[in-house]
Amino acid sequence: MFPMDQRRKRHVVVLGAGFGGLAFCQQFRHPNARLTLVDRTNHHLFQPLLYQVAACGLSAPDIAQPIRGILSKRRDITVQFNHAVDFNLAKKRVRLEKGALDYDFLVLAMGGQTSYFGHPEWEQFAPGLKTLGDALHIRSQILLAFEQAENEADPAERDRLLTIVVVGGGPTGVELAGAFAELARTVLNRDFRRIDPTKARIILIEGSPMVLSHLPPDLSASAQRQLQALGVRIRNKLHVRDIRAGEVELANGEIIRAGNILWAAGVAAAPLTKKLAVELDKAGRVKVNPDLSLPDHPEVFAIGDLALALDATGRPIPGVSPAAMQMGRHVAKIIAGEIVAGTKPAARPGFKYWDKGTMATIGRSAAVAWVGRFKFTGWFAWLAWLSIHLIFLIGFRNRLAVLFQWTYSYFTYKRSARIITYPPSR
Amino acid sequence: MFPMDQRRKRHVVVLGAGFGGLAFCQQFRHPNARLTLVDRTNHHLFQPLLYQVAACGLSAPDIAQPIRGILSKRRDITVQFNHAVDFNLAKKRVRLEKGALDYDFLVLAMGGQTSYFGHPEWEQFAPGLKTLGDALHIRSQILLAFEQAENEADPAERDRLLTIVVVGGGPTGVELAGAFAELARTVLNRDFRRIDPTKARIILIEGSPMVLSHLPPDLSASAQRQLQALGVRIRNKLHVRDIRAGEVELANGEIIRAGNILWAAGVAAAPLTKKLAVELDKAGRVKVNPDLSLPDHPEVFAIGDLALALDATGRPIPGVSPAAMQMGRHVAKIIAGEIVAGTKPAARPGFKYWDKGTMATIGRSAAVAWVGRFKFTGWFAWLAWLSIHLIFLIGFRNRLAVLFQWTYSYFTYKRSARIITYPPSR
Repeated sequence: MFPMDQRRKRHVVVLGAGFGGLAFCQQFRHPNARLTLVDRTNHHLFQPLLYQVAACGLSAPDIAQPIRGILSKRRDITVQFNHAVDFNLAKKRVRLEKGALDYDFLVLAMGGQTSYFGHPEWEQFAPGLKTLGDALHIRSQILLAFEQAENEADPAERDRLLTIVVVGGGPTGVELAGAFAELARTVLNRDFRRIDPTKARIILIEGSPMVLSHLPPDLSASAQRQLQALGVRIRNKLHVRDIRAGEVELANGEIIRAGNILWAAGVAAAPLTKKLAVELDKAGRVKVNPDLSLPDHPEVFAIGDLALALDATGRPIPGVSPAAMQMGRHVAKIIAGEIVAGTKPAARPGFKYWDKGTMATIGRSAAVAWVGRFKFTGWFAWLAWLSIHLIFLIGFRNRLAVLFQWTYSYFTYKRSARIITYPPSR
Repeated sequence: MFPMDQRRKRHVVVLGAGFGGLAFCQQFRHPNARLTLVDRTNHHLFQPLLYQVAACGLSAPDIAQPIRGILSKRRDITVQFNHAVDFNLAKKRVRLEKGALDYDFLVLAMGGQTSYFGHPEWEQFAPGLKTLGDALHIRSQILLAFEQAENEADPAERDRLLTIVVVGGGPTGVELAGAFAELARTVLNRDFRRIDPTKARIILIEGSPMVLSHLPPDLSASAQRQLQALGVRIRNKLHVRDIRAGEVELANGEIIRAGNILWAAGVAAAPLTKKLAVELDKAGRVKVNPDLSLPDHPEVFAIGDLALALDATGRPIPGVSPAAMQMGRHVAKIIAGEIVAGTKPAARPGFKYWDKGTMATIGRSAAVAWVGRFKFTGWFAWLAWLSIHLIFLIGFRNRLAVLFQWTYSYFTYKRSARIITYPPSR
């Protein structure tokens, strides 16, 4: 390959190696194009299982794959461990923390982050769950609270340490609450001498009348019952007024003292969307054209959690991994087609989201699933959840390792990753 | 069990859940005794495989088991997540960070830590490898250096980032140097576009004329050759004069600039031994009686890396895990016997170390082993090393998980734990 040749190639820059960015890279391939993929971590994260790392069920490498490893055979792709800090859309240039990139096409796929609805000061008291670092931090903090409770003479303080509050009854909040209830009741229950881990209180706070309010009411109700059967106390129709060190104040004035407070109530687009100077919704998402390009910038696309795309009925497409992957493939086809044609067609195809169904897991043999006209709850939904997640885990080794861990945990009621790797505040 | 009953029981306090402390707990069992095991972490660490966590071969939970889980069936043992801060041997009391414990028998098994030979300021530039936190930190730093090199335009700085210096040619230094040489040459080699990871320099600095100087000269020489075959540059008969940010100065004035400097040159006993007011050697180890008790304190024992015990020929017993485990069992038998008898015998049996052999691994199919009159090198020694380490890994799950990882890595030349979990300095 000669430099001359290289210069004629179209340069496609992809920001973010999540589900959307990676699906784009895997779909897109063109002899007259070269690709640069930029990510601020060195791994692709299988985010749907992140809560299992927090809840001691899986280890970090089980759900993370090195990006370079996934793409090592793609000589047309350059991976950069770096991140964007600003854009010059007029000059088709992205400024990175280190250096800059000129592009012919730009794909924005940086995903989302935890949002505290205008209360960033709550983050220090109530961590969210978005990165591997978050998950390992939460895991250590929760295990540490049980250890501190075991050493604590004051009963009130012991009760506080054994209280976990999860704010937000969406899929992440439900998974976290269920997983911690199980951890306390079936894993830690035999291991302490002074405290009784089965007395730990797991409290889930949800503003709407039912958890998983995006699901049909009968499935929400089933999820709520399955959670309660695991021992989770659900506080519906309550909002959080304030979060301080070790306590949550509810809108009704009630104060819950807790050793651990986890935030699963909101996500927003990566804040970098603000630098694009285009219209955003209140979660910071880019309002894209039907083809997922930016208004006035047909060469720039936004996909996944940072895009606000509407379906045929005008409703927003949900921020879930299948949607992000479908968006990535859609944009890959558009760009490849235009490189072949050498020009932009009069009209591009609009993105159509194929909803394969929704599921949420609650615990061992407990889940809800909604696929087309079919609804499942309990053991069968849980098995479906398990299979789907194994199939979509990227990487043969991870799939086998996770299957192995799950089988082991299922039969032994043990969790292997009960390791405090770094005492957080010492 | 009534409180009255409880009060008559003899209280045995064990500090440290490493190989020595845990072997003691597993051996010791007596109806008239209760046991308190204190550790500053929540896990027992299989330290011989710690370098594999640093070198991306294994994940942290693979080599760590929750202490409470290992001992959950032993109702006579209380585990405390805590650590000792001072002793009152006259009053038979240990002061802990939180609270205090009165004992009838005390077993000191806190192990060792990295020693910088009077240069504690080197630690920040050249981390040692003693805890899971150390291993995860080293892993992230080394992967980060390769990523930074890929983004670096200046060739001199790129070379520096691709240089790893390991100080100390004992077993840990040899394992680290070999593992990183393999990582660069067989795992990362396909994954970068600008840098060539096979050009990474792995430099091992050793004061004596040969690595592994505790082994017979022919085995040392073989280890040295096997390391060089992997591409490690060994600098023998050289000492380190100074370590600064990103560079090592040797005794001959030579300066080596390196992106990563790892310290594997010295261990010392846990510093708490200084509070015992007994005679210590210069590494801080307690000079114990032949039965492993402290001079003038027959009820206090020191075992493992913090004890200086001599064999029949007057040579110190090496600080290796089999020795620590044998010491733990020896002390368990003494204490159990005296609780039965109700008194200390005129003479206690002395500890006899049974040397089962020594081995060190260098890389894939590369190792040296010395068992009795037999010496092995290369593939056969490596297989022996593998089997022994699998057998002694505590926990069925870990054993299977590690076997699985090793088999996978062996056949695919991939390492699963290539994950930067927390960018160290951002």
